[in-house]
Amino acid sequence: MRSIYCGQLNVSHVNEEVTLCGWVNKRRDLGGMIFIDMRDREGIVQVFFDPAFKSAFDLAAELRNEFCIQIKGKVRARPEGQRNTDMATGEIEVLATDLDIINRAEILPLDFNQNNTEEQRLKYRYIDLRRPEMSARFKTRAKITAFVRRFMDENGFLDVETPMLTKATPEGARDYLVPSRVHKGEFYALPQSPQLFKQILMMSGFDRYYQIVKCFRDEDLRADRQPEFTQIDVETSFMSAENVREIMEKLIRELWMHIKQIDLGSFPVMTYAEAMRRFGSDKPDLRNPLEIVDVADVVKDIDFKVFAEPANDPKGRVALLCVPGGAELSRKQLDDYAKFISVYGAKGLAWIKINDIDAGLDGVQSPIAKFFTAQQMQQLLQRANAKNGDILLFGADSQKVVSDALGALRLKIGKDLKLTDENQWAPLWVIDFPMFEETETGLSAMHHPFTSPKDLSPDELQCNVLEAVANAYDMVINGYEVGGGSVRIHKNDMQQTVFNILGINEQEQREKFGFLLDALKYGTPPHAGLAFGLDRLTMLLTGTDNIRDVIAFPKTTAATCLLTDAPSPANPAALAELAIDVVKKD
Amino acid sequence: MRSIYCGQLNVSHVNEEVTLCGWVNKRRDLGGMIFIDMRDREGIVQVFFDPAFKSAFDLAAELRNEFCIQIKGKVRARPEGQRNTDMATGEIEVLATDLDIINRAEILPLDFNQNNTEEQRLKYRYIDLRRPEMSARFKTRAKITAFVRRFMDENGFLDVETPMLTKATPEGARDYLVPSRVHKGEFYALPQSPQLFKQILMMSGFDRYYQIVKCFRDEDLRADRQPEFTQIDVETSFMSAENVREIMEKLIRELWMHIKQIDLGSFPVMTYAEAMRRFGSDKPDLRNPLEIVDVADVVKDIDFKVFAEPANDPKGRVALLCVPGGAELSRKQLDDYAKFISVYGAKGLAWIKINDIDAGLDGVQSPIAKFFTAQQMQQLLQRANAKNGDILLFGADSQKVVSDALGALRLKIGKDLKLTDENQWAPLWVIDFPMFEETETGLSAMHHPFTSPKDLSPDELQCNVLEAVANAYDMVINGYEVGGGSVRIHKNDMQQTVFNILGINEQEQREKFGFLLDALKYGTPPHAGLAFGLDRLTMLLTGTDNIRDVIAFPKTTAATCLLTDAPSPANPAALAELAIDVVKKD
Repeated sequence: MRSIYCGQLNVSHVNEEVTLCGWVNKRRDLGGMIFIDMRDREGIVQVFFDPAFKSAFDLAAELRNEFCIQIKGKVRARPEGQRNTDMATGEIEVLATDLDIINRAEILPLDFNQNNTEEQRLKYRYIDLRRPEMSARFKTRAKITAFVRRFMDENGFLDVETPMLTKATPEGARDYLVPSRVHKGEFYALPQSPQLFKQILMMSGFDRYYQIVKCFRDEDLRADRQPEFTQIDVETSFMSAENVREIMEKLIRELWMHIKQIDLGSFPVMTYAEAMRRFGSDKPDLRNPLEIVDVADVVKDIDFKVFAEPANDPKGRVALLCVPGGAELSRKQLDDYAKFISVYGAKGLAWIKINDIDAGLDGVQSPIAKFFTAQQMQQLLQRANAKNGDILLFGADSQKVVSDALGALRLKIGKDLKLTDENQWAPLWVIDFPMFEETETGLSAMHHPFTSPKDLSPDELQCNVLEAVANAYDMVINGYEVGGGSVRIHKNDMQQTVFNILGINEQEQREKFGFLLDALKYGTPPHAGLAFGLDRLTMLLTGTDNIRDVIAFPKTTAATCLLTDAPSPANPAALAELAIDVVKKD
Repeated sequence: MRSIYCGQLNVSHVNEEVTLCGWVNKRRDLGGMIFIDMRDREGIVQVFFDPAFKSAFDLAAELRNEFCIQIKGKVRARPEGQRNTDMATGEIEVLATDLDIINRAEILPLDFNQNNTEEQRLKYRYIDLRRPEMSARFKTRAKITAFVRRFMDENGFLDVETPMLTKATPEGARDYLVPSRVHKGEFYALPQSPQLFKQILMMSGFDRYYQIVKCFRDEDLRADRQPEFTQIDVETSFMSAENVREIMEKLIRELWMHIKQIDLGSFPVMTYAEAMRRFGSDKPDLRNPLEIVDVADVVKDIDFKVFAEPANDPKGRVALLCVPGGAELSRKQLDDYAKFISVYGAKGLAWIKINDIDAGLDGVQSPIAKFFTAQQMQQLLQRANAKNGDILLFGADSQKVVSDALGALRLKIGKDLKLTDENQWAPLWVIDFPMFEETETGLSAMHHPFTSPKDLSPDELQCNVLEAVANAYDMVINGYEVGGGSVRIHKNDMQQTVFNILGINEQEQREKFGFLLDALKYGTPPHAGLAFGLDRLTMLLTGTDNIRDVIAFPKTTAATCLLTDAPSPANPAALAELAIDVVKKD
């Protein structure tokens, strides 16, 4: 029905007869003629109707925004002075000789080019997605997946599909359950990841696997989470953690080059311990120049309990951020920052402003300056590498509270004071995570229970549970965890040891992981893998911080699809067939 | 950990030092040496251990089948007379200088190279998938998807993901439901296809869409059905049915050329009516030379009610299959065929054997010959194009029973008598399906309720419901429906007319399809699409008729995963959180 897309026309088509299909983007009447901007997937072109072609001109009088039309016409160069160099097709226009109104449009329920609420945009998604800025994102997304697939294919990774109707697994977040009609009272689970299936594929000798695959998590949603999300899922045999990181880093570097023509360079590698110490986060945004500086040794003897106590507690931490130019911060701003970090458990925000670094205690301004000797203060300023006009902001509490609070404060101040260069790219690897972390209900695996410890036998692991380091790695870009993975356990005794440490008793091990423990008995190869969050990569590569902008039909933060109105009550007959009842609300 | 795959070694590597990783496929001790066939993803190579390399040799004595090992060694040409040209690596072998046993294997729970029950194969899938014939299928499957993606990308189709957690739709088969935790008592449905989302994408101006995507159907399973299956899903705007068929036929033709180096040629196009008349099926296997021949006009006056009644009933049909060489069939075989077609409602199987075509009534043998005059018999034999030694097999009943029975019998006899050339490829398009079919509960859409009628206005459709032809098309290869699609309705009034005909009242229309009816008001483009069954295409291209051989982790016909033992009872706490109860069994 068309000979070319609107957006593909240029001066090389002048004098050609063309047939175009698309939508009326805008109409204006000028000098006895009717002009429209006609839009299709590839762009916009100016079409005009001349009374000389009477039937087309008469029909054009009926055109309104978003009518779906077909026109036939002739391309011509725009007259001198009417050329629009801001528009890809701005040097030409099309004189319409025929017009067919394919489908009319009522007045739109939302304003096409203005800001609408996100609720409106999601409800009328079919109109929101017509906006060129939205369709551009999905073109980029398709370009990303095509590139990733090509890279993986070329590197010998085999694209294998794993099931969506699987067995429930205890991977930390909650499973979506699917009642079975054949086996009444039993349930499938939608996969949180294809973890065990990809490990089974390695046990089957597939050697290198990948899949771009939907995963599901029924958890409380945040701005950058969705109930269903897409993972670039990778697993390899006979490769070390370093091998996996090398090839995956190559993928991401080439992806950035392909999409943005930007060279990310070689990724620094940082241990979890160092990341927590310097940045208070296991996904540090390295574009932010602020670093957390430990000062427990400097303050351990001062007469200020708030500092001295954690400074002398092996589980405590006293540290600071030195903010350049921060001496300008008002009392109100400092109070707001104190409130901001209180959600991380911090009980206050001590500060020291540096007015004259050479004037000793007289050169600083601070409610806590009185607790310091001149020598202690000098030592502190030196450690912080402070300069005139800076402010020191302190955290003093348990290690966790200080790291979390100063880690978050660092990001906030970096943005507020524009210290973070938003145009930079800062990728890195974070490695050597702890194997286990203590939670309210006992120990849990920090990565997942199939992660191998680094250089430990089962016995050694058993004796060093909290100190044990996992052979795991996360890829972080600009403070987003874009991917993570690990070397997996490939020996039955080690897997059982980890299950035991996690308090999974033998019966539960058999029930939930019997097939894995069995499979580990038949010559399982060493294997390792990784998964990237495709939605996050796409957010970074399309410059949005709203995950719903890179998913065609997303859910709200209440897990609702406003377009189709899902979820919805089920047909009672269907529920009866599934042998389930809805519990009435109180 | 490896320098090259086992299966990649050949004479060009002679004298090279290599490191290999893989599994012991077979071991044999011979002449004081230990030989193993070592296997990895790419194939098998012979490795031998010489006592000269003592530590490797001593360790090799421990090797058993399926041990996972790493060896270092030197490639050498096999001695004259020991070369094996059946094996890709048969001209060389590797002298192992180092051996590392990475992981031992217990005695396998199934026989690696022998036939095992499918239950065993599914339960120990990690071992079954090690068999080279299985891994070869998944390599082909990955090659198919990569080719399809490349073709679609090159032809301007945009890969867009649609949701898995969707709203229930009434598409004929049953939905899998997913209870929502946030909206207690409400449910998502897993998609039977992304039909409405891909139509919405067309309304959004995406112009050409594709996706390789999981779909779900909770229905009784047959040998070639799975609860989850994979679709190559396609939708286009501004294209006619012919345009869509042309580009999709090109895809399949190029796919066959890519995978099998076979040219399928141009696909014949046949109407549904013709397919039912000539082959008794809407997915005829054209490799089978048998055709159904209508004879109602010949038998309408004979004194045999079984024939005469349906021959005179406008809803009846009398037809025959003429089977070459079929006069040899025994009474027992004919009884078996009669029984075979009884499941389609046929009440018997009348037959006429032709001994001497020139001898008139004396030349045939049949319990029903007595009802025919010589002239009628001659007319019958001519119509059937019968020859000496043939048999005529009759169906006489309602159109549906006769078509179904003779259609099925045609396939069975084609196989039994080896009339069907299994090495051929016979693709075709079937078009012009009826819009609606009568079922026990009323009218239902033969394709789906979004399919456009062919050349009818809403008023004309309303007046010709049962005669109306849909603008739908199926692609059939060797009797399998590999794909199907249609031109969709793109006008609000037509969509409402179809819903009305289907007895969906206005309230239900709003509840279930309100968003679609709304979207149709804002300049929807004409659009059409198609979906291929990837699993079926892969079955055809890998030469298996078992769908479970082309899915890495399939379900049984009872929808169970024997590997992981899914589905399984759910955690009561999880059910409580979802506000659902399992109804106790009686």
